[in-house]
Amino acid sequence: MKKQGTILFALPGNEELTEKLALHLNVEKGVSVIRQFPDGETYVQIQSDVKNKRVILVCTLHQPDNKLLPLYFLSKTAKDLGAESICLVAPYLAYMRQDKRFTPGEGITSKYFGKLVSVFAESLITVDPHLHRKKSLNEVYNIPNKVIHSAKLISEWIKMNIKNPVLIGPDIESKQWVSKVAKDAGASFIVLEKTRLGDRKVLVSLPQVDAYKNHTPVLIDDIISTAGTMIETTVQLKKAGMKPPVCIGIHAVFAENAYQDLLNAGVADIITCNTIPYKSNRIDISKNIAEAIGMEIHQV
Amino acid sequence: MKKQGTILFALPGNEELTEKLALHLNVEKGVSVIRQFPDGETYVQIQSDVKNKRVILVCTLHQPDNKLLPLYFLSKTAKDLGAESICLVAPYLAYMRQDKRFTPGEGITSKYFGKLVSVFAESLITVDPHLHRKKSLNEVYNIPNKVIHSAKLISEWIKMNIKNPVLIGPDIESKQWVSKVAKDAGASFIVLEKTRLGDRKVLVSLPQVDAYKNHTPVLIDDIISTAGTMIETTVQLKKAGMKPPVCIGIHAVFAENAYQDLLNAGVADIITCNTIPYKSNRIDISKNIAEAIGMEIHQV
Repeated sequence: MKKQGTILFALPGNEELTEKLALHLNVEKGVSVIRQFPDGETYVQIQSDVKNKRVILVCTLHQPDNKLLPLYFLSKTAKDLGAESICLVAPYLAYMRQDKRFTPGEGITSKYFGKLVSVFAESLITVDPHLHRKKSLNEVYNIPNKVIHSAKLISEWIKMNIKNPVLIGPDIESKQWVSKVAKDAGASFIVLEKTRLGDRKVLVSLPQVDAYKNHTPVLIDDIISTAGTMIETTVQLKKAGMKPPVCIGIHAVFAENAYQDLLNAGVADIITCNTIPYKSNRIDISKNIAEAIGMEIHQV
Repeated sequence: MKKQGTILFALPGNEELTEKLALHLNVEKGVSVIRQFPDGETYVQIQSDVKNKRVILVCTLHQPDNKLLPLYFLSKTAKDLGAESICLVAPYLAYMRQDKRFTPGEGITSKYFGKLVSVFAESLITVDPHLHRKKSLNEVYNIPNKVIHSAKLISEWIKMNIKNPVLIGPDIESKQWVSKVAKDAGASFIVLEKTRLGDRKVLVSLPQVDAYKNHTPVLIDDIISTAGTMIETTVQLKKAGMKPPVCIGIHAVFAENAYQDLLNAGVADIITCNTIPYKSNRIDISKNIAEAIGMEIHQV
């Protein structure tokens, strides 16, 4: 049985998802110690037997900078102890946005991060990475990878929970994705025009929405980070006499006070997938991740 | 002139030392932007021309985990922009302690960290790395490297500032180093027997010190981290009727409240080299680092 040779490790904060994956797949959960010395260095120990096993490291990558080293160390330790292969499950993949040099001298961190991950992970499973200008994750990662799409789960959630929805996508690039979610949910959709003025500030222009006065607006986006776009859209919907919107994101990044700021803007609800641990998570994507892990097993 | 082709970049927090190095060497200081996006990702931009230049990245590595990615990004960006080579100046080098598997399953982070640094730095300059069980930095780093020794500067400082000193080293491994400092300072020395009980707790046994009642005890160690050893030694010196000690460390790591704890233990003074920015720094090692950079230049 191939599955007997697979072992899942939860990096700190990923215990809940890892537990779900272990149940779906009926595979072993590894025991490891990851702690900080008083001087801030990381200590890593693997207590389970990983020899000749396929090691799956579960580590979502929001706030990535201080997650990288513990993850790298755990991977190297597993290899030192005889692991057959290392697969990284990062439901949220960081550093997907700076994928070109917008201003002279800028670092293309998307490329550099991809290279660094390839140093310690032999394969990668992620959920809807932010492929803005890239067509495929293979343009950034040169290791075998599997992308899971949440669109169907989001459509189902909308169908089950919202009467008479109208979906609102943040910008023209989101059109293809939003239209698919809308179609599967049997709903109409609108796409906004967005102009980014800085890290936090955006301008949003709302088209004619009079036809949707009796609908529940559903703002959807892949990442909710500062929530700037959703807050600005909510303000404009209110002005246009629309109902308070339901906000749906795939990845609950929520930088700083973004979640509270979005609530304060007067939204009806905030819903996210469980790619990053957060109180707004109500769409469970663990089964799809487990399937991807299972498929990888058969490929081995 | 080779030196015209060298450019120094200060990673955040390393500005003061980099300024000194630039003055010693009379070379250009590079301008870069390193900042965090609201979601915690790092943005990097190099505004100076680095094309065909020897790039020196100055980044001391205490509290290393969230320094690694910005450093890696800056290096990759410089290379992307045509830098001839990348040299890392890390006056304090992290992850030197876990250099073997003490308990089954442990990660040998010293080895892994060395490998990771080698991914983005082509050479390395550091000050007195903690080579406890290793004889040479080459056992950990497979890139050209230069180790600067602070012993002479420390001896000079003691000679200039302390009347009738007796040097006290923390353990038998420090004997060679402490005896050298003592000899150059024209002082006697004692070496303690230390037993480590945990990250913070140590047992220290003080030999007969009656002969040194009129001396000023000078506790010296390479790293002052939790200061556990120095605090415990100070307590025992007090019991033995000795004067309050002067504490000298090379690297001012000072985990958590260690500096204040050490002061509270009743020491006369705390002195460190400027390998890590800290208020206790009074021994300036910048000239020696500059010399090492200059030597590297001639090697190129």
